[in-house]
Amino acid sequence: MINRLIENIKRTNAPVVVGLDPMLSYIPEHLTKKAFAECGETLEGAAEAVWQYNKAIVDATYDLIPAVKPQIAMYEQFGIPGLQVFARTVEYCQGKGLVVIGDVKRGDIGSTSAAYATAHLGRIQIGQKTFTPFGEDFATVNPYLGTDGIKPFLDVCREEKKGIFILVKTSNPSSGEFQDRMVDGRPLYELVGEKVAEWADSCMGDSYSYVGAVVGATYPEMGKVLRKIMPKSYILVPGYGAQGGKAADLVHYFNEDGLGAIVNSSRGIIAAYKQEKYAAFGAEHFADASRQAVADMIEDINGALAAR
Amino acid sequence: MINRLIENIKRTNAPVVVGLDPMLSYIPEHLTKKAFAECGETLEGAAEAVWQYNKAIVDATYDLIPAVKPQIAMYEQFGIPGLQVFARTVEYCQGKGLVVIGDVKRGDIGSTSAAYATAHLGRIQIGQKTFTPFGEDFATVNPYLGTDGIKPFLDVCREEKKGIFILVKTSNPSSGEFQDRMVDGRPLYELVGEKVAEWADSCMGDSYSYVGAVVGATYPEMGKVLRKIMPKSYILVPGYGAQGGKAADLVHYFNEDGLGAIVNSSRGIIAAYKQEKYAAFGAEHFADASRQAVADMIEDINGALAAR
Repeated sequence: MINRLIENIKRTNAPVVVGLDPMLSYIPEHLTKKAFAECGETLEGAAEAVWQYNKAIVDATYDLIPAVKPQIAMYEQFGIPGLQVFARTVEYCQGKGLVVIGDVKRGDIGSTSAAYATAHLGRIQIGQKTFTPFGEDFATVNPYLGTDGIKPFLDVCREEKKGIFILVKTSNPSSGEFQDRMVDGRPLYELVGEKVAEWADSCMGDSYSYVGAVVGATYPEMGKVLRKIMPKSYILVPGYGAQGGKAADLVHYFNEDGLGAIVNSSRGIIAAYKQEKYAAFGAEHFADASRQAVADMIEDINGALAAR
Repeated sequence: MINRLIENIKRTNAPVVVGLDPMLSYIPEHLTKKAFAECGETLEGAAEAVWQYNKAIVDATYDLIPAVKPQIAMYEQFGIPGLQVFARTVEYCQGKGLVVIGDVKRGDIGSTSAAYATAHLGRIQIGQKTFTPFGEDFATVNPYLGTDGIKPFLDVCREEKKGIFILVKTSNPSSGEFQDRMVDGRPLYELVGEKVAEWADSCMGDSYSYVGAVVGATYPEMGKVLRKIMPKSYILVPGYGAQGGKAADLVHYFNEDGLGAIVNSSRGIIAAYKQEKYAAFGAEHFADASRQAVADMIEDINGALAAR
């Protein structure tokens, strides 16, 4: 799947991923009104509004981008109907040729991590038959529990040719509270990065590993160091745009081959129509605003890469 | 909810929690056969078998115990039908007067953590109405992302009188890989424990905090230290029984008042009928074997507490 992600990135010339993290407050009123009229002011109604919103954004952007990253929390908050729309979104995006990164940040130990790996990347055998529970192509994983928590994901990645992105240095202001603590003179995130490199070596695609890392755009100096520590890992970079990460800072997350990183934007794309810059599109044409925001993001990042 | 957990523990005189972590391989054949006959060899069939299994175990043990802890990964692996049974299990257990600890180990940043907190402990407003997505009483939370990831859970805990258990030192063999790394001469888990104590102070019930911690039974020396660092936090202790934790070691997780800890057993209870000790019950009477295993566990732990 890492090979296919790279193919998609090369084909679109766009090292970006659109974060499908729908909040009810982002969804234009004409969509929520219609969904509530059909399904009531219920979890089902909210989930239907999310689905129509996602579908319009995917239809308007899929030819420009290699991948999407739905954040499962935003669906889980709508209970079962929300998770049904998560699953439907995964399937729909895959049908459009997109690689789907499930931003699930799961992580547990032994058989429990194996169950999460099965849920999101694997297949489960029931009697004589085999089923795919959620079927994302990649999942994000939390490393706090150590190798026991990661190994079951690696096993499924090898078997299914799927991939993971392990949290190394997150984009939020307080990520340093534990991640930056100095251990033997070096920050903890570097030690996590070294383990990621080790796991990555054991799980290689053609030129990059099935095992990637999450490193926030808001910490470019750390990104530069981590790029070197994990040479074979794709870096998934959240924090561009709304959270403050700039394209010029992002060049450090890429390798010399122009590959090795994929930059996420969520709010900046899916709620673009709410920005002054794209307000002329109007709420009715929110998906066209998203398409323009994607084009602008790609130009911004490719421009910075060309200038380095 | 921490007050109610303590009431339940006092009433039952049982500082234990039963982990409802169903694996298909634990479920007696007569249940899976029946479920597959009704719903096919499908995700729905597997979920139905899980539901019947859970229901029988809860019916046979609820009067002896204060709480249950369903591990959501074991449901998530069966996709949407699995999560429907998770939600049904939560509701059913609450109907029996049990406190439900959702072992979800979620954790993200800002609005995403808020969405997880809403999903598992809170309510969501849709139009003029309010819904409870999964509605557990407590949730387990991963601290790797720092205060940004925890704060939204604290907000929901205060509003809804719910609680969380934050992973501090997990029970698995490789938990030390990152958690034990020395920071300024002290292991990382102690620093996490100090943050837990700080968060706990800001979110108090009558005598204990809404904010608890997870500390594995397999590391009793660390449990002793962490007990002192987090005096107002309930400690949820996994790793008893199947993972090797012994009752004599567990006394260090309790405070002088005899409170402050709740010990989990999953496989040791729900698959008791598969142990030699309880084999005489037979697979048909698996739930009676679970009841006996619960009684034995309570006696084991209370015996150790009386002997200290």
